[in-house]
Amino acid sequence: MRLTLHTDYALRVLMVLAATGERATIGAIADRYGISRNHLMKVVQRLVQLDLVRSDRGRGGGLRLARPADEIAIGAVVRLFEETGAFVECFEAGANRCRAAPACGLRRALAGALEAFLAHLDRITLADVMADAPHFAAALGLTPAPPLPSAAPSR
Amino acid sequence: MRLTLHTDYALRVLMVLAATGERATIGAIADRYGISRNHLMKVVQRLVQLDLVRSDRGRGGGLRLARPADEIAIGAVVRLFEETGAFVECFEAGANRCRAAPACGLRRALAGALEAFLAHLDRITLADVMADAPHFAAALGLTPAPPLPSAAPSR
Repeated sequence: MRLTLHTDYALRVLMVLAATGERATIGAIADRYGISRNHLMKVVQRLVQLDLVRSDRGRGGGLRLARPADEIAIGAVVRLFEETGAFVECFEAGANRCRAAPACGLRRALAGALEAFLAHLDRITLADVMADAPHFAAALGLTPAPPLPSAAPSR
Repeated sequence: MRLTLHTDYALRVLMVLAATGERATIGAIADRYGISRNHLMKVVQRLVQLDLVRSDRGRGGGLRLARPADEIAIGAVVRLFEETGAFVECFEAGANRCRAAPACGLRRALAGALEAFLAHLDRITLADVMADAPHFAAALGLTPAPPLPSAAPSR
């Protein structure tokens, strides 16, 4: 069980943008993490469409958060990026679908468990997971963001 | 995000054994579900080692549950079969590990969410997900198990 790469990368982009005081570029983020620029580009396009990230062109342009880090719930990001419709192969549409699926109580149990997973992350913001932003920025060689006026309590 | 095939298969084996009043064989279970016999064999070996399934040799032998279905928590099965150590690639040991991992608050957030996921399943038993056992057995062409003396309430 693991998050998809797209969710992972979406969270990484948001964390970089929360950590740094400068506009970032896709190339710079890919280099800092040592990950694929092509994969990252698709993720950033989606983040811009979802109004989580703003992309400005030209001199002084680049990527930045479209809203404050304490207003971005991790649960919301995971809900937008993660596909949970085929959480077990046997519930998929098509050839792999289990013959007993209509009479199987497992789907409801797993749906409830997934909702508990997401509900936990709904209560945690990007600011919460970036409580150690200065060290995070230093680890990636980023210019740190100025501290928030009032730091959100860690949950 | 999805369960691994081994967890999926482990749950399927337990559900078949809960649904049928007869001893089952690996071959018969693989045929009913239309899944790989080799994969299933490894999963059944693990279920026997974990004392969830009993395997008797010879005439009248085969597989059966090692304990009653209402004493097998789905959460326990998922905890035993699912590997969550690399829930996001960036926390893996080795080359894919993110440079910022030591200063990243995401791991704690995700660990809490995974625990909420599992805690939900800890409260649900194999008997709960098999509340519709007769239809489940019929869908797979199994001989239904006799009803439990007192059916556990559906959760």
